[in-house]
Amino acid sequence: MSEPLGLEVQIARPFDQVLETVRAALKVEGFGILTEIDFEQAFREKLGRDFRPYVILGACNPPLAYAAVVADAQVGLLLPCNVTVEAVGPQTSMVRLTDPEVLLRASAAAGSPALREIAQDARARLVRVAAALKQES
Amino acid sequence: MSEPLGLEVQIARPFDQVLETVRAALKVEGFGILTEIDFEQAFREKLGRDFRPYVILGACNPPLAYAAVVADAQVGLLLPCNVTVEAVGPQTSMVRLTDPEVLLRASAAAGSPALREIAQDARARLVRVAAALKQES
Repeated sequence: MSEPLGLEVQIARPFDQVLETVRAALKVEGFGILTEIDFEQAFREKLGRDFRPYVILGACNPPLAYAAVVADAQVGLLLPCNVTVEAVGPQTSMVRLTDPEVLLRASAAAGSPALREIAQDARARLVRVAAALKQES
Repeated sequence: MSEPLGLEVQIARPFDQVLETVRAALKVEGFGILTEIDFEQAFREKLGRDFRPYVILGACNPPLAYAAVVADAQVGLLLPCNVTVEAVGPQTSMVRLTDPEVLLRASAAAGSPALREIAQDARARLVRVAAALKQES
């Protein structure tokens, strides 16, 4: 991809540490982790293939999610907000955070003021999470 | 939203039955369920609010997911493919399936032939799942 799909923060610390830092930074902004996918483990188990440490966290702020699904029931196709943590070297990790406004642009809902406002709130929180992570990098 | 964000199938059967039918139809196309979010339960527990039965299944076809993340590491922000099942009445359920091509359009990756080809494959499978579900409706 030529442009980033979300917010990106590269951190000069090992994967395991960064994963814990990301969890804590999301919690500060009211995001719980509803789901967690470990690609390294999944690809080993399902395909017998090696892969680097790569985890997808499904982050959800319950009041925002509730407001969004009340505004438009099909928003569940875009939830939760994914945050990925990837080892790009033994001492370097890449964190990517969904940009809810980019996602919403994909949908005809881009014109719905209620949903756009919720996406802006979610985005502002994730921008603050990215800023907090940058302090760590 | 004025246009659907994904593929939609309304089925004249109760939620619990449709949820099982959806799981089976996804399996036929090689999608496992990696994650599952129960909005009714989550909103009750986190917000003390009532909501209708609404589940988000995170469907993942491991070979396609592997090919996608090898083609572009940031695709994890778009995975897994969400499929939502919602009770719209006691005997009526709505199933929505992510359209990977719509999602990909949101990203600059729309121009990446490798990822577009993978999205087309995933989409074709989900279209077949939707067609199988329409037989039930």
